[in-house]
Amino acid sequence: MFRPETAAPLSQLAEVLLRGDNTLSRGERELIAAYVSNLNECTFCQTSHSWFAAKQLEGGMELVDQVKLDPDDAPISDKMRALLEIAAKVRDDGRTVTSEDVEEARRNGATDVEIHDTVLIAAAFCMYNRYVDGLATWTPTDPQIYDEMSDRIVEQGYVRVPGVAAPA
Amino acid sequence: MFRPETAAPLSQLAEVLLRGDNTLSRGERELIAAYVSNLNECTFCQTSHSWFAAKQLEGGMELVDQVKLDPDDAPISDKMRALLEIAAKVRDDGRTVTSEDVEEARRNGATDVEIHDTVLIAAAFCMYNRYVDGLATWTPTDPQIYDEMSDRIVEQGYVRVPGVAAPA
Repeated sequence: MFRPETAAPLSQLAEVLLRGDNTLSRGERELIAAYVSNLNECTFCQTSHSWFAAKQLEGGMELVDQVKLDPDDAPISDKMRALLEIAAKVRDDGRTVTSEDVEEARRNGATDVEIHDTVLIAAAFCMYNRYVDGLATWTPTDPQIYDEMSDRIVEQGYVRVPGVAAPA
Repeated sequence: MFRPETAAPLSQLAEVLLRGDNTLSRGERELIAAYVSNLNECTFCQTSHSWFAAKQLEGGMELVDQVKLDPDDAPISDKMRALLEIAAKVRDDGRTVTSEDVEEARRNGATDVEIHDTVLIAAAFCMYNRYVDGLATWTPTDPQIYDEMSDRIVEQGYVRVPGVAAPA
């Protein structure tokens, strides 16, 4: 709200990456966002995107918590496991992603677009996390706020319709 | 080019942040981008944004090199020095930015928008750097390529006009 000029492309990027047409489900993409934000220890992003993932994945918050604790042990596909491994490496430093990591993802069924989007989701949350924390953004602690926020995101997405105020 | 759906908001973000109306000059904002990309050791972004900064700053590449080597010693304003200090902290971890850092920037004349934009430029290059390196993007080594690229960016910006091919 402080800087609508930059908020527009930031929201559009989130909308395309996390909700646009994709062979990865919205829940799977939010899971990558929550996983990276948790590694970056960004409380606001990690909490909110965990909610967004939980509401769009069959396994709910239990699955999200398992993935954050240890993706190797979580009941997810081998493709998702390989993509999360790439996401964790991008989060650390893009140069640590190897051809073998990409091959492993392909071997488990990941398409090039899915691999590309995983890299970009992980990179984008290295931006969003720093943006939120660098400005010491207010982080709600009441779960009800995240509950309502996640209903709104799941239903309406990240891009506000111009001229229409967001629900309080 | 592989993923125009995500390229659009990524280009728009760069255009608004680095070239939109601002009390920080385009050269100063490219300097922040080059400085952060150099700390992240992203060869492509560090080289290209150093060129973009050099072509839009009176001190040219000599000044850019001095800033990358040591901002404390470089002939820049105290305001720019304080903003670069914030950028370096955001790059490391957003949570390391202190109220004192923000106060120091304000004391040296930085506005809230300038501080906000510095945080977001630094955060955004933590994304762009990881995106470029995570996909092992081809990085030219011929300076002439960066020379031509920087002329194009300085003249035309980051957002391509739809339907118009970029110059080869």
